Amino acid sequence: MQRAAALVRRGCGPRTPSSWGRSQSSAAAEASAVLKVRPERSRRERILTLESMNPQVKAVEYAVRGPIVLKAGEIELELQRLSSSQWPLAGSSACVLFPQVMALCTYPNLLDSPSFPEDAKKRARRILQACGGHSLGSYSASQGVNCIREDVAAYITRRDGGVPADPDNIYLTTGASDGISTILKILVSGGGKSRTGVMIPIPQYPLYSAVISELDAIQVNYYLDEENCWALNVNELRRAVQEAKDHCDPKVLCIINPGNPTGQVQSRKCIEDVIHFAWEEKLFLLADEVYQDNVYSPDCRFHSFKKVLYEMGPEYSSNVELASFHSTSKGYMGECGYRGGYMEVINLHPEIKGQLVKLLSVRLCPPVSGQAAMDIVVNPPVAGEESFEQFSREKESVLGNLAKKAKLTEDLFNQVPGIHCNPLQGAMYAFPRIFIPVKAVEAAQAHQMAPDMFYCMKLLEETGICVVPGSGFGQREGTYHFRMTILPPVEKLKTVLQKVKDFHINFLEKYA
Amino acid sequence: MQRAAALVRRGCGPRTPSSWGRSQSSAAAEASAVLKVRPERSRRERILTLESMNPQVKAVEYAVRGPIVLKAGEIELELQRLSSSQWPLAGSSACVLFPQVMALCTYPNLLDSPSFPEDAKKRARRILQACGGHSLGSYSASQGVNCIREDVAAYITRRDGGVPADPDNIYLTTGASDGISTILKILVSGGGKSRTGVMIPIPQYPLYSAVISELDAIQVNYYLDEENCWALNVNELRRAVQEAKDHCDPKVLCIINPGNPTGQVQSRKCIEDVIHFAWEEKLFLLADEVYQDNVYSPDCRFHSFKKVLYEMGPEYSSNVELASFHSTSKGYMGECGYRGGYMEVINLHPEIKGQLVKLLSVRLCPPVSGQAAMDIVVNPPVAGEESFEQFSREKESVLGNLAKKAKLTEDLFNQVPGIHCNPLQGAMYAFPRIFIPVKAVEAAQAHQMAPDMFYCMKLLEETGICVVPGSGFGQREGTYHFRMTILPPVEKLKTVLQKVKDFHINFLEKYA
Repeated sequence: MQRAAALVRRGCGPRTPSSWGRSQSSAAAEASAVLKVRPERSRRERILTLESMNPQVKAVEYAVRGPIVLKAGEIELELQRLSSSQWPLAGSSACVLFPQVMALCTYPNLLDSPSFPEDAKKRARRILQACGGHSLGSYSASQGVNCIREDVAAYITRRDGGVPADPDNIYLTTGASDGISTILKILVSGGGKSRTGVMIPIPQYPLYSAVISELDAIQVNYYLDEENCWALNVNELRRAVQEAKDHCDPKVLCIINPGNPTGQVQSRKCIEDVIHFAWEEKLFLLADEVYQDNVYSPDCRFHSFKKVLYEMGPEYSSNVELASFHSTSKGYMGECGYRGGYMEVINLHPEIKGQLVKLLSVRLCPPVSGQAAMDIVVNPPVAGEESFEQFSREKESVLGNLAKKAKLTEDLFNQVPGIHCNPLQGAMYAFPRIFIPVKAVEAAQAHQMAPDMFYCMKLLEETGICVVPGSGFGQREGTYHFRMTILPPVEKLKTVLQKVKDFHINFLEKYA
Repeated sequence: MQRAAALVRRGCGPRTPSSWGRSQSSAAAEASAVLKVRPERSRRERILTLESMNPQVKAVEYAVRGPIVLKAGEIELELQRLSSSQWPLAGSSACVLFPQVMALCTYPNLLDSPSFPEDAKKRARRILQACGGHSLGSYSASQGVNCIREDVAAYITRRDGGVPADPDNIYLTTGASDGISTILKILVSGGGKSRTGVMIPIPQYPLYSAVISELDAIQVNYYLDEENCWALNVNELRRAVQEAKDHCDPKVLCIINPGNPTGQVQSRKCIEDVIHFAWEEKLFLLADEVYQDNVYSPDCRFHSFKKVLYEMGPEYSSNVELASFHSTSKGYMGECGYRGGYMEVINLHPEIKGQLVKLLSVRLCPPVSGQAAMDIVVNPPVAGEESFEQFSREKESVLGNLAKKAKLTEDLFNQVPGIHCNPLQGAMYAFPRIFIPVKAVEAAQAHQMAPDMFYCMKLLEETGICVVPGSGFGQREGTYHFRMTILPPVEKLKTVLQKVKDFHINFLEKYA
């Protein structure tokens, strides 16, 4: 630091970091005052500006970490972390087997310790055996560690009641987001009217719109049916694809099941209809199934697109191109920080598989610790293993609590005048519709904000609760929503819901 | 599996995975034989093909994991893993403090164990304290965990003799590759003659050409001076930029120092010249400095672009836009599997910093375990801490061995007729020039291979040694090279070098 001080005294020091936020002229004035060196040239025009930057990146919007969340960060209120699907909230892992296996993989010396269960050690040994240099610290193959891909394939086969999965069709990824972006990147082509159209649900998880924007593809919206528990209606898909054909080449159909932010779980019939539609319209299917373990409504069940595809017979199972995504971030483990995920591809052209591996190899490999995390998620203890009972209790507790909170949230929101909430059949969010009075809409316009952004900002300022406005996910014009996670512990969630209720009633009165 | 068998019997089963590799017609024949269900429709034209895919992705080449490495994978010879910069080869970490801190972070229960040194625990507590839910399993801020960015900034300040670094300018990334792709993605714009030109060294690390291709930017080559130990000559930069201006808008200058694959370490004078050139030509500087700890020649020293920039005075330090990259994958720890990295940006417009965070947030956050790994790399033990002595011995041993192997490799290659190898001043590779006889060039052409690809393929087939042909990195026309890592243990490396020597002499004779 002495040397830095000397540099500054000699007039060679940097501007202080705090000056970045100021205008160019004040920065220049400061520079001239402090540095006394050719002040007239101390700030040239920058090369990289909003005007010169990649316009496709500029057009990206990403509400889940947008202004509301930034504002929450500034306010740093106790409840700010409700904003994301942060998990586990409680500081420790939901299932103790997870950190045990991860620690053993991380520091193999611990394999000699008597304080780890034998099945945790067995898992760790299996993973390490397959890693380069028997270490999570080595690069893996770009497609992912072989034995982990085998475990994923075995998991899918069990999940789908025996429909076989091929490890060669499994690609480990840096979270599901990475897989989705990668496959979209390969799919997008053409210019003008033959530019690739990508069909996405509205409301959607904003990764989709962001990646479509980055790739300069055409976003084709299909609306989920809010009146019908956010169900997907194939007639709406037909409308959307017909309209899109006027200005682009619809080539991809994205499905989120269970839905984010909408939480609906698609029926088997609906999935069959969607697959038939994709077959008819020659669409590549992207099935975002990261919430496959998060189904709460007793009358709902998760059906994978792949399983339904195979059950529909070879005309479909040999023809429909499908990529399905899963992640370590959801389910009952919720280990988001490790950025583990996989995609399974079906009917991908062998040459395209080569292209996919090439593209993945440019980033060398997904984090090997995330790959190990994925292995633990798809390879839970079975009866007879040392960890089985504790694990089963933990899993039941997490999923039971989520189901309880899903019901609690739906019920409480529906007691509030001006809020309507569909059943949270699955996933981790409520996406209630909120009534915003005309006067509040006008107040929002005066602040150049979307009305639901205005609402959410007020909620944050007045209660410290951070929810994401529906406009960030897309919604039918004139309707307003917000997304709230149900991850906080039950008692905390009750407090939050009560606060939202009080705020809402107050808001309605204020802008009546 | 019973159910799957039943599905197949009912004629609803999938084709066997092994049939993917076959031609469409044989697959169709098989389907018709096995399934007996409307065989004429069992294989429709695929949506995603080499013809329909994203042409920019198709154009990507990535030699480091290209055909040679795939071939090595097929052959699975003992020495195949020489192919990448795999590290650590020996199965355990180079510095024991690393897995200790990582295990403590992964499984905080271990913080009570007496078998970990106190300073490892202190590091782990500091990291966990700053993580959401005190867990590596939670998402972090998209820019990275605050205290880790602070530790990175402190490291840079120490490294650069006191030139201050601001944590707000530090972005943690998924390895350096992720940072480089991200900043290039923001930088690229324009169409036709105003398309962004990106200057890269030849030979280059093929991440650059791959990302430039993906982004449909224009690659502008400047050649390193092989006759002068692969030095960067500013006159060559001038030539390249002048020629490029005819067909694009050169806006970015990428530097790799120490060089990959060429291993040269740039002099302070050279860096000053490059910065002045970037200032004159209004170029955004990308300094790939991932090998900053890997300098072996006693007469070379690493100088960071940032430090030189600041020492050149405020005209430069307030104006030149610079992004510098580092990684957990190199240095003396070499923990590549964790995919940890950071970039430091200098003089980035505040609005662009906002855009950068937005873009990063689409992928939520870099792996938190990789962020923790980065913290350990930039925050090594200091005198007085429990781990200091062992750590110092380990570090000295790793770097001492690399220096020894760098010299050994250079000396041995230069004893072989038809091989010339510049000094390996830094990084982890030899990039010798090889003479390929006319007859071998003709044989290569007959196999539709680049001559050095032919050479490397023969080397692999005959010895099991996998090196990457120079054509994958770029080289002056008519010259041939390969890249080989110096990571294997000394004795193994000697064997490898001897085998390469014998192969080369034999190759010269065979194609004389």
